[in-house]
Amino acid sequence: MDESAPRQERLVFAGLVGGAQVLGLASVVLTAVWMGHYRGGFSWDGSSFQFNVHPLCMVLGLVFLQGDAILVYRVFRNEAKRNVKILHGIIHLLALVVSIVGIVAVFDFHRAAKIPDMYSLHSWCGMLTIILFCVQWVMGLMFFLFPVASSWLRASYLPVHVFCGLVLVVMSIGTSLLGITEKLLFSIMPTYSTFPAEGVLANVLGLVLVLFGVVLCYLITREEFRRPPNPEEESLSVHFKTLTEGGTPNSP
Amino acid sequence: MDESAPRQERLVFAGLVGGAQVLGLASVVLTAVWMGHYRGGFSWDGSSFQFNVHPLCMVLGLVFLQGDAILVYRVFRNEAKRNVKILHGIIHLLALVVSIVGIVAVFDFHRAAKIPDMYSLHSWCGMLTIILFCVQWVMGLMFFLFPVASSWLRASYLPVHVFCGLVLVVMSIGTSLLGITEKLLFSIMPTYSTFPAEGVLANVLGLVLVLFGVVLCYLITREEFRRPPNPEEESLSVHFKTLTEGGTPNSP
Repeated sequence: MDESAPRQERLVFAGLVGGAQVLGLASVVLTAVWMGHYRGGFSWDGSSFQFNVHPLCMVLGLVFLQGDAILVYRVFRNEAKRNVKILHGIIHLLALVVSIVGIVAVFDFHRAAKIPDMYSLHSWCGMLTIILFCVQWVMGLMFFLFPVASSWLRASYLPVHVFCGLVLVVMSIGTSLLGITEKLLFSIMPTYSTFPAEGVLANVLGLVLVLFGVVLCYLITREEFRRPPNPEEESLSVHFKTLTEGGTPNSP
Repeated sequence: MDESAPRQERLVFAGLVGGAQVLGLASVVLTAVWMGHYRGGFSWDGSSFQFNVHPLCMVLGLVFLQGDAILVYRVFRNEAKRNVKILHGIIHLLALVVSIVGIVAVFDFHRAAKIPDMYSLHSWCGMLTIILFCVQWVMGLMFFLFPVASSWLRASYLPVHVFCGLVLVVMSIGTSLLGITEKLLFSIMPTYSTFPAEGVLANVLGLVLVLFGVVLCYLITREEFRRPPNPEEESLSVHFKTLTEGGTPNSP
């Protein structure tokens, strides 16, 4: 947060960023407790214990890491944009790898247990989300990290990229909620209505995910938390171009 | 859309508004077909046919009408703000009434069938959404239609009101998706994985709702579709104040 910003604004910003981290970590921990304690733990042997890897990886990758990858532009708003951009790309790559592990886990489990794939609304939304996430990642790489697009094209694409990033986080959270409902109804349908600890814990996990999404979207869309324009705003591709043409970049 | 806006921008805007209407209406029609054709139709006798009123009212009220109530600020951006504000409030009131009918339908059905209330993630998210919707409606009424708050307070609250409105539409859509998954697993769990027509129709309904939300959020958040500042920007409460104090408003 900018040092020149009013003290109260900085406090609100710090509180919201801290809140987002607590909510994001809480969602990962609650998923781990649900799968580890109530669903028997984790393994990689095609059993239901391998399935348990799926929710954990998806919440960690597509929700928490994807959310934090977006937040770096607000948290490090006074750092060199090139560095923030690289950090944004790296966290997204990490999110993608973790998510792919999570997807392999569930497809492997389905194959071993002879359960059909891709018939539920959760799977349709999840597949759509992960495909769009990959498209967004490749487009981001081409537009903002490598000198493929012109400055005009980059500037036009930036708001679309930001909007799609938020849509993807919200879709990831929505898909997680669908997964929670599916898992509960497949596992504890006869007792779910008696408010068992597992059902309550999973519902609370759902609400924590919703809150994480709300705080994240608020931080990203509020005008006063935006990164102010500065010389570092120019794309990294300019540096690439300058360097490959033997010149010197005109900003650090 | 402003007449002075570039032709291409106006075409994109019209296409997106038209698309939102098609998607919103399609979601209502698909819900009606699902409940009317596959789930036996509608009644008000405590049976499962009364339950069928619930999804239809919630999609119509909390998704389509709430979405359109927000859209009026973009569609009628050149009309007198007072009129648009009243239309916004009326459509929201209609959305609230339709939603309350939908909620009564499901609680009545639960009571007749001796099914416990409020144990699922869908019910938790739904109750949270409808409570926040009521709070948002009352706050909107107090801040923007009646002269309770000062101009400074209204101006500070406006971005929060807009943000919360979008959060509420997204929460309504997410809750609808949870409801779709719950209903499918309660009704057709043994055959859902064989891609029956009912399952595919309900999944498509889920995707249509997601698309409606994405188009709506895009229309509301894009800078170029915003209502331009004009003399009508002043709150209606000013008119109320002027009229009650015997003066004349300084804008129509």
